[in-house]
Amino acid sequence: MLNRWFRLIAAWAVLWVLLLAERGLGQERASDPLPSWNDGAAKNAILNFARQTTDRASPQYVRPEQRVATFDQDGTLWVEHPMYTQVVYCLERVPVVVKERPELKDREPFKTVLSGNREAMARFSMKELEEILAVTLSGMTVDEFQAEVKRWLATAKHPRYQRRYTELAYQPMLEVLKFLRANGYKTYIVTGGGQDFVRVYADQVYGIPPEQVVGTAGGTKYGYDKSGRPTLTKEPKLLLNDNDAGKPEGIHLVIGCRPYAAFGNSTGDRQMLEYTGAGGGARLMMLVLHDDGAREYAYGPARGLPDTRVGTFTSQLADEAEARGWVVISMKNDWRRVFSFDPEVVPTPAR
Amino acid sequence: MLNRWFRLIAAWAVLWVLLLAERGLGQERASDPLPSWNDGAAKNAILNFARQTTDRASPQYVRPEQRVATFDQDGTLWVEHPMYTQVVYCLERVPVVVKERPELKDREPFKTVLSGNREAMARFSMKELEEILAVTLSGMTVDEFQAEVKRWLATAKHPRYQRRYTELAYQPMLEVLKFLRANGYKTYIVTGGGQDFVRVYADQVYGIPPEQVVGTAGGTKYGYDKSGRPTLTKEPKLLLNDNDAGKPEGIHLVIGCRPYAAFGNSTGDRQMLEYTGAGGGARLMMLVLHDDGAREYAYGPARGLPDTRVGTFTSQLADEAEARGWVVISMKNDWRRVFSFDPEVVPTPAR
Repeated sequence: MLNRWFRLIAAWAVLWVLLLAERGLGQERASDPLPSWNDGAAKNAILNFARQTTDRASPQYVRPEQRVATFDQDGTLWVEHPMYTQVVYCLERVPVVVKERPELKDREPFKTVLSGNREAMARFSMKELEEILAVTLSGMTVDEFQAEVKRWLATAKHPRYQRRYTELAYQPMLEVLKFLRANGYKTYIVTGGGQDFVRVYADQVYGIPPEQVVGTAGGTKYGYDKSGRPTLTKEPKLLLNDNDAGKPEGIHLVIGCRPYAAFGNSTGDRQMLEYTGAGGGARLMMLVLHDDGAREYAYGPARGLPDTRVGTFTSQLADEAEARGWVVISMKNDWRRVFSFDPEVVPTPAR
Repeated sequence: MLNRWFRLIAAWAVLWVLLLAERGLGQERASDPLPSWNDGAAKNAILNFARQTTDRASPQYVRPEQRVATFDQDGTLWVEHPMYTQVVYCLERVPVVVKERPELKDREPFKTVLSGNREAMARFSMKELEEILAVTLSGMTVDEFQAEVKRWLATAKHPRYQRRYTELAYQPMLEVLKFLRANGYKTYIVTGGGQDFVRVYADQVYGIPPEQVVGTAGGTKYGYDKSGRPTLTKEPKLLLNDNDAGKPEGIHLVIGCRPYAAFGNSTGDRQMLEYTGAGGGARLMMLVLHDDGAREYAYGPARGLPDTRVGTFTSQLADEAEARGWVVISMKNDWRRVFSFDPEVVPTPAR
């Protein structure tokens, strides 16, 4: 009887070992974790960083609980041109809000939004934009807001690509997120965009749960609805402006430790990268340069690219990147594809 | 040759299976995940909640990414009498701060602190305490603050137990934290205490990393030191008062979703428990009642316990707990031991 058991177990073990070997071979065959990246300095920087900080024998080894990587969103993880997605949302919400609050109808800047005059809207001052944001992003409960954003995202389309905004994440960056997570890194979004807005889709689009989204955040107010059920209502009070110096401040507030890697694309990410780089050991700081008007957009004004109001990458930022050893990612040269739906794969250019 | 391999693998597999079986039996023998809890309603509530929300066949199953449990700290996870640990820290920091800022020496409330008159200190108004907190918890960099707190915790002793404060975590609650984590829950501290203060030791004491500590938080200011190195300096500006309604507000700010379990011990935790309970499905709300003056402290004023200023558990809170089905944990009856160093284990009382 015992002998029979031995044979059964032996057969089972052999099957199991063969299966494991098969899987191991399969993994080796498809082993490039960054298939949408051309070979080059940018791709190597990512691969080397992961190797140096996860190899126990490396002097730059980082313990798993300290592995934190932060990513700006707009222009770093997804398209921000011609206008930040959240601003489009807010502008498109104005008619709904005006229906509930008709007194806004004849008041600027709401009047201009209702007129549909896009050129006039493009000239809005920061104060006017803030007024629109305040009115469209507060006054409702957190649950109502989430439902509204979800509804909007399900149908709204990007004017150039004619695809939903949630399809416009950069495929190479999705691979970096996945690769760093596979190496034990917690991946955080640290965005100038609204924390509550980004949380609605971050899990679906980036595999990032709500508690790993740090963003510009307003206060909420605890109360009770008519049936006595507790509610949190979004207030027009700004708690954290998660841009520029606000990024390291927000990282400290929500995460509480210094990242080992930080990715951005504009001057608003400068302090986050500085703060990350000021830690000891191996740190990875990278900036996406939008130099690919054919597949995406071209804007700087660094390296002679056009100067736009959205996602500015100045020559000063390029100089600081060079001085501090931050790696600039050329969208044109470093990315074999930009979106998951890109039909064409660009081969590695000769360097 | 192949045959030899088969036999080798068979032998290895048998060894392995025997080992696994042995381990399984061992685990079953020591299978009580809450050994410091007496059998009873409180212990059962915890065990049932974990079973209901992690069993895939249960109608109240909760997906792993949604499993969030929040814990108040002072009086729920560790001792808060005769005074909150952080307030003791702040009072003991006053002489150091006055050495750097001698102009405070003759000003109240600092003068009283320097006099050492504990009775007068116990009468401090909220405004006076806030002044002491502002002066001792801001003005330094985040790194300096962490180093100071670490140094203090290494030597400061609790006046009654004559042990370091970090030894005064409740053993039964440490078991709950571990048990819920083993069931896939992310365990968060949601404390009225200072977020930066608690983060210094939360990992060591509770196994909770900095990003899972939500607390009363002040702003920080990004800047550069003399050598040009980026710094974050603690400011006296309050961002989040993580008490009462501030607890659900802080949970939304940092975690971004509703907890499935919440533990507290005082009126400051009421809104957190209400907010937790207002979600659908199985939710676990528990309150620690300090009814054990022999092993710890006895205070209410619920159930005729003494009324103190620290960690108030009112009759109104007890009524709400009963009405809403929150489980009250009797320290005296439910806990076989209070601290890990307790020599004695109290048997389950007859009920």
